[in-house]
Amino acid sequence: MGSLKGRDLVSINDFTDAEVQNVLETAVEMEGIIGKPSNLCEGKVLATLFFEPSTRTQFSFQTAMLRLGGGAIGFSDISGTSVSKGETLQDTIRIIESYADIIAMRHSQPNSLSLAAQYSSKPVISGGEGKGEHPTQTLLDLYTIKKELGRLDVHIGFYGDLKYGRTVHSLIMGGSRFGANFTCIAPHSLQMPGEYVKKAEAKGSKVEFCEDVNQVIGNLDVLYVTRLQKERLSPEDDYQKLKSLYHVDKTLLSKMKPKSAVMHPLPRVGEIEEDIDLDPRSAYFRQAANGVPVRMAVIASLLGAK
Amino acid sequence: MGSLKGRDLVSINDFTDAEVQNVLETAVEMEGIIGKPSNLCEGKVLATLFFEPSTRTQFSFQTAMLRLGGGAIGFSDISGTSVSKGETLQDTIRIIESYADIIAMRHSQPNSLSLAAQYSSKPVISGGEGKGEHPTQTLLDLYTIKKELGRLDVHIGFYGDLKYGRTVHSLIMGGSRFGANFTCIAPHSLQMPGEYVKKAEAKGSKVEFCEDVNQVIGNLDVLYVTRLQKERLSPEDDYQKLKSLYHVDKTLLSKMKPKSAVMHPLPRVGEIEEDIDLDPRSAYFRQAANGVPVRMAVIASLLGAK
Amino acid sequence: MGSLKGRDLVSINDFTDAEVQNVLETAVEMEGIIGKPSNLCEGKVLATLFFEPSTRTQFSFQTAMLRLGGGAIGFSDISGTSVSKGETLQDTIRIIESYADIIAMRHSQPNSLSLAAQYSSKPVISGGEGKGEHPTQTLLDLYTIKKELGRLDVHIGFYGDLKYGRTVHSLIMGGSRFGANFTCIAPHSLQMPGEYVKKAEAKGSKVEFCEDVNQVIGNLDVLYVTRLQKERLSPEDDYQKLKSLYHVDKTLLSKMKPKSAVMHPLPRVGEIEEDIDLDPRSAYFRQAANGVPVRMAVIASLLGAK
Repeated sequence: MGSLKGRDLVSINDFTDAEVQNVLETAVEMEGIIGKPSNLCEGKVLATLFFEPSTRTQFSFQTAMLRLGGGAIGFSDISGTSVSKGETLQDTIRIIESYADIIAMRHSQPNSLSLAAQYSSKPVISGGEGKGEHPTQTLLDLYTIKKELGRLDVHIGFYGDLKYGRTVHSLIMGGSRFGANFTCIAPHSLQMPGEYVKKAEAKGSKVEFCEDVNQVIGNLDVLYVTRLQKERLSPEDDYQKLKSLYHVDKTLLSKMKPKSAVMHPLPRVGEIEEDIDLDPRSAYFRQAANGVPVRMAVIASLLGAK
Repeated sequence: MGSLKGRDLVSINDFTDAEVQNVLETAVEMEGIIGKPSNLCEGKVLATLFFEPSTRTQFSFQTAMLRLGGGAIGFSDISGTSVSKGETLQDTIRIIESYADIIAMRHSQPNSLSLAAQYSSKPVISGGEGKGEHPTQTLLDLYTIKKELGRLDVHIGFYGDLKYGRTVHSLIMGGSRFGANFTCIAPHSLQMPGEYVKKAEAKGSKVEFCEDVNQVIGNLDVLYVTRLQKERLSPEDDYQKLKSLYHVDKTLLSKMKPKSAVMHPLPRVGEIEEDIDLDPRSAYFRQAANGVPVRMAVIASLLGAK
Repeated sequence: MGSLKGRDLVSINDFTDAEVQNVLETAVEMEGIIGKPSNLCEGKVLATLFFEPSTRTQFSFQTAMLRLGGGAIGFSDISGTSVSKGETLQDTIRIIESYADIIAMRHSQPNSLSLAAQYSSKPVISGGEGKGEHPTQTLLDLYTIKKELGRLDVHIGFYGDLKYGRTVHSLIMGGSRFGANFTCIAPHSLQMPGEYVKKAEAKGSKVEFCEDVNQVIGNLDVLYVTRLQKERLSPEDDYQKLKSLYHVDKTLLSKMKPKSAVMHPLPRVGEIEEDIDLDPRSAYFRQAANGVPVRMAVIASLLGAK
């Protein structure tokens, strides 16, 4: 396993399986120092460049750096930046990398993260790239699965918008590297694209499809629910009708295994009833919380502090 | 007196009289460490969730946490947050409380702060709730009165918009707990609502009313001036005419006791002439400055660091 | 040389020549601590008040303070501030100076920085004032020239919008104090205003003018390029035509001395071809990077930490 020091995390495939496992183990250690003084990254500065706003992801990165003893600068809105004056992304990156020690960046354009990593001599971490990858989300999903179920070679049911949902694309690829199998639960128009299915199968995963969650719910270790992202749907998709198909409530939960987990990248907008929040299998808030130790582990590793 | 560790501050009534006094004493101590390195809250993170923007209050909270050795994340604009994607307040809070150690929140909706406190396992501090309470403002007002006059059982004249002004509602309730008496100086249409008067009287305070500040100015220990908040007035109120009624100048100040204080929560927009700023009784900038040590005391107390 | 502790930096003329030299020497020292834990300004808070947004300058100030071990608060947008409620600048300053230990402020209005410095008992650093001065930019430009060429008594060619460009106005005045000579390369309508020329000549500098960069390029130590700021041009100026006049490419660079430097305050929007970025004389990204140690030196000096 190579050292992660000085490396980028643009795609989950930037890390070998051993490196992913190592980050997950470091995250366990990071949980232990949350809320306590830490000087692991003292003197270091994280820049969070959110060309596409996402308050939660940005908070999670900033909190991670603060908890490591470092500092954070950043924007979540490009008005007022040099980008609005016509500056190229590569110029922006070259300047920011001369200020900060590490960069977390979110952008809507394909290949923007690769471009940033290419021009930056400092580590670049993707905070999500349009319809593309969101590798720290994948890491925190894997971390959550391992923490909830004790292992990664589990049966995951993806339930929601599998066509446009970036988190499920990343997780089917990430999970397939560690022995997970999948059932994709969606109507035809929102099913998992074939390219991801093929990649997962090439890693040895079994991938099945169904339209009715009830047919498969009893066999799942993880029910991974996603929000329909109205903003990413095609005009011909019927948002209201599609939305009514997804619903996790007490009745559905009663059919799940006693040891299993309901996950959701959040925010939810009606897909999961609040009255199951206190069920021990409802893991989505714990999943969100895991974003901090996992991002601490990534930042500390890329800075060579772990 | 119970420990404040882990508690919320949504209403000034969340603290007993002894607890309020204790926070005011801690604030004195906090003044002594401003500008010096402190590790009282090292490793801790404050989230400032300002659903309603207020740069000054947010700065004051952030500065307080930085001066305690902690870090701060936060927003002052809900665009880009999950709220804009339809997330409920309770879901937002459950996620933020899993990132941060303590939350300062400002919101325009009634009961939003109580809801946040209910769903958060971490301390929630109100940074102001619509027309409702703003308890840290009340604490810093009490702190200022004690610092300027040496005691809290003073005669306070409220002068300005007493109908819609949240700070005076909070201070009449807060002051009545420590022996203050009040004169409410306002035209009928902007007078102090009866509910607050009754509560103050129930605590033993004397509450009087007048329309002309000159009738009472010589008897006051504190002249507490407020801005007419155009945005909160009813359409039938005549802003310009009402505004002309409030004016603090050298002539008015000359009628005040030698040992007395002019206070104002700021910003002022013409109610107080600049040419009295250097008078020793003009306490409003010292009052604003007191926001930092008072909020340091609140944060440190709720985190169990004091 | 007087101590800089407690002083303001509103104009580069606020510092004597010896004080400027001292800040440049301190900046060398600051470079050595970047990325390492520092407690030089531990416990101190910087407020960055950017009434006019400039993400890069603000980041540079914030990063400088974080690298000194201090903390930062600030805004880059006046919506939500008391200014939007009608507060005067002096009131805003009086409150912020009671929160923070030092203020970096950018504002579009003439004399706003002087006013702020007058009302603040804490040091005020200009982060740029409309068409006026931007003294930390001048310091980082001088620092870059000294670092690139080993001395300050160099021949600088200003190339671009010399009429409206604030950085070149400041640098002709700043450079003239340390023996630099100048050639102003611009069409008549964008030439350096006479007032700056006279001031530089009064310091003993030779100032020449030309329209064609090729006539002078071989004699320059520094080619200082600026962006045409469309937003500051007069309506009668022909932006596209003027823009086509400025172009730095391999051909032009081939005519420069082997030991020389191309500088630009950035962002560039086409004035400099990307294919010269790797030439050792292309100093503009190093120039941007120098903003951090130079601002560290200024902050530390004004706070008395150096």
